[in-house]
Amino acid sequence: MSKTTPGNFFEDFRIGQVMRHATPRTVTGGDVALYTGLFGSRFAVQSSDAFAKQIGYPRAPVDDLLVFHIIFGKTVPDVSLNAVANLGYAGCYFRTPVFPGDTLSALSEVIGLKENSSRKTGIVYVRTTGYKHDGVPVLEYVRWVMVRKRDEAAPAPGDHVPRLPMVLDPKVLGEACPPITLSAYDNALAGSEYRFGDYEVGERIDHVDGLTIEEAEHQIATRLYQNTARIHFDLYNAKKGRFGNRLIYGGHVISVARALSFNGLANAFHVAAINGGRHVAPLFAGKTVFAWSEVLAKAELPGRSDAGALRLRTIATGDRPCADFPFKTGEDYDLAVLLDLDYWVLMPR
Amino acid sequence: MSKTTPGNFFEDFRIGQVMRHATPRTVTGGDVALYTGLFGSRFAVQSSDAFAKQIGYPRAPVDDLLVFHIIFGKTVPDVSLNAVANLGYAGCYFRTPVFPGDTLSALSEVIGLKENSSRKTGIVYVRTTGYKHDGVPVLEYVRWVMVRKRDEAAPAPGDHVPRLPMVLDPKVLGEACPPITLSAYDNALAGSEYRFGDYEVGERIDHVDGLTIEEAEHQIATRLYQNTARIHFDLYNAKKGRFGNRLIYGGHVISVARALSFNGLANAFHVAAINGGRHVAPLFAGKTVFAWSEVLAKAELPGRSDAGALRLRTIATGDRPCADFPFKTGEDYDLAVLLDLDYWVLMPR
Amino acid sequence: MSKTTPGNFFEDFRIGQVMRHATPRTVTGGDVALYTGLFGSRFAVQSSDAFAKQIGYPRAPVDDLLVFHIIFGKTVPDVSLNAVANLGYAGCYFRTPVFPGDTLSALSEVIGLKENSSRKTGIVYVRTTGYKHDGVPVLEYVRWVMVRKRDEAAPAPGDHVPRLPMVLDPKVLGEACPPITLSAYDNALAGSEYRFGDYEVGERIDHVDGLTIEEAEHQIATRLYQNTARIHFDLYNAKKGRFGNRLIYGGHVISVARALSFNGLANAFHVAAINGGRHVAPLFAGKTVFAWSEVLAKAELPGRSDAGALRLRTIATGDRPCADFPFKTGEDYDLAVLLDLDYWVLMPR
Repeated sequence: MSKTTPGNFFEDFRIGQVMRHATPRTVTGGDVALYTGLFGSRFAVQSSDAFAKQIGYPRAPVDDLLVFHIIFGKTVPDVSLNAVANLGYAGCYFRTPVFPGDTLSALSEVIGLKENSSRKTGIVYVRTTGYKHDGVPVLEYVRWVMVRKRDEAAPAPGDHVPRLPMVLDPKVLGEACPPITLSAYDNALAGSEYRFGDYEVGERIDHVDGLTIEEAEHQIATRLYQNTARIHFDLYNAKKGRFGNRLIYGGHVISVARALSFNGLANAFHVAAINGGRHVAPLFAGKTVFAWSEVLAKAELPGRSDAGALRLRTIATGDRPCADFPFKTGEDYDLAVLLDLDYWVLMPR
Repeated sequence: MSKTTPGNFFEDFRIGQVMRHATPRTVTGGDVALYTGLFGSRFAVQSSDAFAKQIGYPRAPVDDLLVFHIIFGKTVPDVSLNAVANLGYAGCYFRTPVFPGDTLSALSEVIGLKENSSRKTGIVYVRTTGYKHDGVPVLEYVRWVMVRKRDEAAPAPGDHVPRLPMVLDPKVLGEACPPITLSAYDNALAGSEYRFGDYEVGERIDHVDGLTIEEAEHQIATRLYQNTARIHFDLYNAKKGRFGNRLIYGGHVISVARALSFNGLANAFHVAAINGGRHVAPLFAGKTVFAWSEVLAKAELPGRSDAGALRLRTIATGDRPCADFPFKTGEDYDLAVLLDLDYWVLMPR
Repeated sequence: MSKTTPGNFFEDFRIGQVMRHATPRTVTGGDVALYTGLFGSRFAVQSSDAFAKQIGYPRAPVDDLLVFHIIFGKTVPDVSLNAVANLGYAGCYFRTPVFPGDTLSALSEVIGLKENSSRKTGIVYVRTTGYKHDGVPVLEYVRWVMVRKRDEAAPAPGDHVPRLPMVLDPKVLGEACPPITLSAYDNALAGSEYRFGDYEVGERIDHVDGLTIEEAEHQIATRLYQNTARIHFDLYNAKKGRFGNRLIYGGHVISVARALSFNGLANAFHVAAINGGRHVAPLFAGKTVFAWSEVLAKAELPGRSDAGALRLRTIATGDRPCADFPFKTGEDYDLAVLLDLDYWVLMPR
């Protein structure tokens, strides 16, 4: 019998099944540096121990999206090795800051299963929790993926579609953010004078800059997260597939868009939650990514006067500057759109 | 007189000559992170301080092959700057674990010299020892390379071919591995339920996944090891050479194969020794590397009941999946084979 | 009003204006490792904590040029986002060593302004200081750039060309270098037997090796410094520009040349100052960089017998080996020359 992990097929999952994922990972300053080299992020809180300490963190926390990618990467061998498509995620929120030296692990519970009418595939819903070695949860999210069946004749392993939140409640948004000492928050060092009160619902911001993606870059990033999905790395087989090319990990686009968003949102120092994300089109190396954002909503954090939350839609495009905010024509996305991300960020007041 | 190092030519070596190599190197978590980004290795012991501590290490050790590459890199300016070919290595074993913060240095002793019949080149055998700043040896190996003569008329500097071990004795295999607390070794976190007892001699494992290599990746890796062999970096001159292209450092293929081997050998947490390695064919960027392994032998570690050793042959190929275990046709290697590596790994019982 | 930073135009600057730049940055061992992976630098002092301690540093200092690039990167959004050309720098010297854990920030003062006769652009002179979180300055330099006007009709904001030093006085060269314990300085580990006394004014050294630059490499490097100049990253827009290609950050060439210069200048362990640098021609990915150096002068360090200073000119070329020291034909640079760098290095006596 083969000792190679074939991954789970649709009929292998059960509602309530819990998967403890391999490989635990100690995050270090090395990961942080490489992430900076790959995306060029400039948010002061994550870049500077001194800045972070001054406003109330014990030291600079690890970038929220780096934490997300590391946790996500761990789930791939168990959840999506036989996936046809990554359909979406929802209800993602950060529960405690992560610092260099913390060891991250992940587990997932199957919370929904729905066979497709073709009976060749089914949709698997998992709730994934990332946690530290001491058991403290750092991140939760729900993901649903379309997974192949090993045997089309196998009976559906379950039939339940979970109810998922469209938008996270602001009351969970501050969990991973300590109280901020506003008097010590230095706009010049942070890169912008615009704080929570300066943004208005409906406001749109073109993030101006573009970033061209190289094969080596997305491969290094995705391996850094120990994400093993072969479509990102194996040109030999990808050439024979539907894209004819290595597909860039969707999370890479999210991180590029977040880094670009500094220009216009420099004080959005913490991604508190991701309501949902849609990878509208695949990205391949050689394309230049641009992004723009819209403020969808603003929210108070219950009991906190130090920071407020902005709900943002950030759209990333390929080879298409965003000065005119490309989005949809009727129901359809503009052909250049790669990503439609709906998330909450915190900003100092 | 030029202050540029021309490297040693065949007639510059002497039996018994000892070379203390430049540049000492403090290994850090940064090196570990970059190595992870380049190869995506997922072995839990090297990835997680928490996992490593739980089973008996003081913290996560540095990947064995990263240590090997760093030591190897130091020898290049003195040993192989004028090499025509890197012919082989043997008797490589790890003597103590390396942790971030350790400073590594290397020295080599010439243990054999054999002029070729053409009198244009000769074979140099060196025994290299990598050691920590406090003098503790971390690694030993023998390498032999064919080196050009500066002056064909020069007399041969020696004539001795050393006897080399074909296979390392299992009694040296545990030196760099502390006693493992088996009760704390968590299969789920490690990524596989298969332990030492589950593998059989003759068993073959296709590691399934493929990894396409980019120029930037092998250059960054090889520079990380401060390996200066110009054939890996200098396209301008490489274009005029026999390959017409930058040649990828052979150690890069070894690290890729090791990372791929996680799929099927997830509990092979420590490379204890390399009996020998043959770079069957050169690798160039753009190719996709695949790998498979065969269990050549199993061995008890004298006096230890925590772990056993598997002797593996791992074959890496270029643009050739390994489901049918490509190896040799008669005496000749399959044309897709890049690497034939014979080594010992430790596995928990 | 847009919250996106448009950068300053010529008429936005004022003599005496002080800009505190975003984003403070804690330098870590991760940055050091990635820098090593990108350039392969081998100077023992920066590579080994043990070597550095032995000769008098508390631990291995961060590479001087990495410090320079990080400080330089911070100034881009305020100083040169609307630059037509980076004209030069002068009077750059290092004032204290930087170690992993230090947080770096930068501020710049406008010390000169000169409108061009076209009235479309003007030259802005800034003196930039990099400093640690506790206020200790680590680096100073003057840079001048040609910056576009937003409105051609706007009056010139000032008219003053500052006097700049051609060559830094040797008395400032030792500031970032502790007293060196010469008896502990190990030539073999450092990689060369040639010390200060062995170099002569007028001596030329071909650094021999070549390094081919990949897009991913210069992008990762430049993002590591959080330098946001879009011309380095945005192929989509670059294709429409005067180069038709992403332009590699000039500092990348400096770091490559410095790393190559190890071969011939291995004991030049510290870049103490940069008198001036000229980016003679743009560099694009795919080219192979070579370098050679000439000793322009030698200087004693006042009151110090441990080390002396060499003033070097290092010339970097593209796709052009430097065995015959390509430089100028009459007034014009050889067409292959990329960089003409005039700087001081320290060497042990």
